Amino acid sequence: MELSSRITNITGGGSDGWDVFYRARRMIAAGTQVTELTIGEHEITTSPAILQAMDASARGGHTGYAMVPGTDALRQAVAARIAARTGVPTDMDNILITPGGQAGLFAAHIATCNQGDTALYCDPYYTTYPGTLRAVGAIPRAIITSPDTGFQPQYDAIAAVAGDAVSLLINTPNNPTGAVYGAQTLDGIARACQDHDLWLISDEVYDTQVWDGAHISPRGLAGMVDRTLVVGSMSKSHAMTGSRVGWVCGPHDVIGHMIDLATHTTYGVAGFVQDAAAFALAQGTDAEEAVAAPFRRRRALTLEVLRGQNTVRAVPAQGAMYVMLDIRSTGLDGEGFANALLDAEQIAVMPGESFGQAAAGHVRVAMTIDDDAYVGALQKLVNFAKSLATQ
Amino acid sequence: MELSSRITNITGGGSDGWDVFYRARRMIAAGTQVTELTIGEHEITTSPAILQAMDASARGGHTGYAMVPGTDALRQAVAARIAARTGVPTDMDNILITPGGQAGLFAAHIATCNQGDTALYCDPYYTTYPGTLRAVGAIPRAIITSPDTGFQPQYDAIAAVAGDAVSLLINTPNNPTGAVYGAQTLDGIARACQDHDLWLISDEVYDTQVWDGAHISPRGLAGMVDRTLVVGSMSKSHAMTGSRVGWVCGPHDVIGHMIDLATHTTYGVAGFVQDAAAFALAQGTDAEEAVAAPFRRRRALTLEVLRGQNTVRAVPAQGAMYVMLDIRSTGLDGEGFANALLDAEQIAVMPGESFGQAAAGHVRVAMTIDDDAYVGALQKLVNFAKSLATQ
Repeated sequence: MELSSRITNITGGGSDGWDVFYRARRMIAAGTQVTELTIGEHEITTSPAILQAMDASARGGHTGYAMVPGTDALRQAVAARIAARTGVPTDMDNILITPGGQAGLFAAHIATCNQGDTALYCDPYYTTYPGTLRAVGAIPRAIITSPDTGFQPQYDAIAAVAGDAVSLLINTPNNPTGAVYGAQTLDGIARACQDHDLWLISDEVYDTQVWDGAHISPRGLAGMVDRTLVVGSMSKSHAMTGSRVGWVCGPHDVIGHMIDLATHTTYGVAGFVQDAAAFALAQGTDAEEAVAAPFRRRRALTLEVLRGQNTVRAVPAQGAMYVMLDIRSTGLDGEGFANALLDAEQIAVMPGESFGQAAAGHVRVAMTIDDDAYVGALQKLVNFAKSLATQ
Repeated sequence: MELSSRITNITGGGSDGWDVFYRARRMIAAGTQVTELTIGEHEITTSPAILQAMDASARGGHTGYAMVPGTDALRQAVAARIAARTGVPTDMDNILITPGGQAGLFAAHIATCNQGDTALYCDPYYTTYPGTLRAVGAIPRAIITSPDTGFQPQYDAIAAVAGDAVSLLINTPNNPTGAVYGAQTLDGIARACQDHDLWLISDEVYDTQVWDGAHISPRGLAGMVDRTLVVGSMSKSHAMTGSRVGWVCGPHDVIGHMIDLATHTTYGVAGFVQDAAAFALAQGTDAEEAVAAPFRRRRALTLEVLRGQNTVRAVPAQGAMYVMLDIRSTGLDGEGFANALLDAEQIAVMPGESFGQAAAGHVRVAMTIDDDAYVGALQKLVNFAKSLATQ
């Protein structure tokens, strides 16, 4: 009577890089005022209008089992949105509604990976990626990206490790790096998937948060529609992180099998939450831009604060709620810097090492507090880095 | 580039036994009035008081990420409820909140079964059971129960097939049979688990719906607390099917690993839904009894309708929202009878064969419509069976 090896191996052992985060939370609990720039949570809550739609749906009686694949209305709304944004014909049978983007990532890997298959992901990575691959019994293999290419994965780097892999997981706009994959990067990714017969699992949950260039969904590239599963979510675009509602978009036959999977993993998503999501999508792009605007502003403020010094350098922050800062000039690694900053200035940031080896010597700053506080904290971070660099 | 074998194999091929259900739905869509006694959905919606608590939580700001294991308040409420009902010391670290009971079943099997392991379940079974085992990559093996023993699994039958199995899934009170496992049955189950070193996964989502005898949770039996994972849910007890909120209760170390799993499969459950569930549990057993009362009444009405005839015989209906009727005297199997009844009387019931081979020659009737309509439909069913039996 033992636990399964896939569940005991999920975390992969060793530090998960969240020591600074938890230390900050303990300091706060003990009464210290700490400025948290750690996690990707909006400082706003879900809008009252969306919550009103949810309550109206629930009181209107939508409290029984919803259809497992999702309500027709939400599947159609998601499909229409994807078709409008990418130009790829998409209908509701391309869509499975999931209880959040993470559930979509997990389901997409269950669908594409057998036990023991190798699944690729890009380093730096969102924290749950390697564990998600291990949770489905796959063997995670990293594609190491470089700050020199803005952490964008290159064809050669993918091809070099593709070997017997069955899938490639990407994330654009990217958490933690803030990169938005350009046309050349995505062409290389598409080519690598076709040359090495890989499924592409494309996490696009930050697709409404682009500050520089444009989001390109690789599902729309030549030859990719039948091998791409796009994971989306209402979390970041509509400040609905807590509602746990997202989707997978893929070929009809794949979604058909994923509906079978959903019947046995979640049995659908709350109908009133889906109705709230459909309402939110119907508000159009202005509502999405309103949610994205604070991060757009703070990204501009970030560039202003960093101007005129070379100690702290930003990785090009093209999208998402984060900016990745290169602090190698201080002589510290990301974890050392983050711990020292927390002690000296009571500012908590995430060590780059939390997101893989490629981001060593960096820290990730979440732009998730109000503008003035954000600018003040970032200025302190820069001054602290300067004080270290000149020691 | 193929789909994983575990996802393409989930349904196991062949008919899923839902043909009658879907045919009834098509008849309804085409304008025919059909009495549906098919699925386990209350005819009531979630109570306004619970929905009010949910709305208050959401508008109060609980719309960001909730803690992945569940809120402290809900985990504590569930632990206290289990401790009170079973006498087994239980604290919040024994509890993982899941997005529904089905998610709990899936997670419990991910935790206990490696790819290729054999997992036991009892036939007749709730529809998703074999697929859930296949979805985690396990090999389902049935323990065939008999109407002669009220479909209660016996020690010898378990021991005969336990072999190299790693887990046993049970459900009491039982869907579809209405059986409530007695002390002797559960002693045999506990003995079999210990003799054959099996995890016991105990689905107790109907634990508030017991008409005859008492619900016994096997986690409370000698030697079982460290090898039992109990799956519970708010769906049936509080008419919250659509809210998708349930739990797994197990040993601390198992729950610890299952929290790692939840981080990578669902990333938690909506905080406002959890607050609604905690509010609902705080209303106490009167609220649960109010939700159960209609089924208690209709179970008594069922026995009245069936009195004085031998054509249709009820399997002892001790709990849950269903009654399983033996219609073998008609000369038809369950599917033939259900189809003929739908054509002749526009009444839809589930063929016993939908739930496995052991329930062949039976139909499952969901007691989920108002009392008068229920009695009328059941009387028609009996008369129809009599007309067949005397042909």
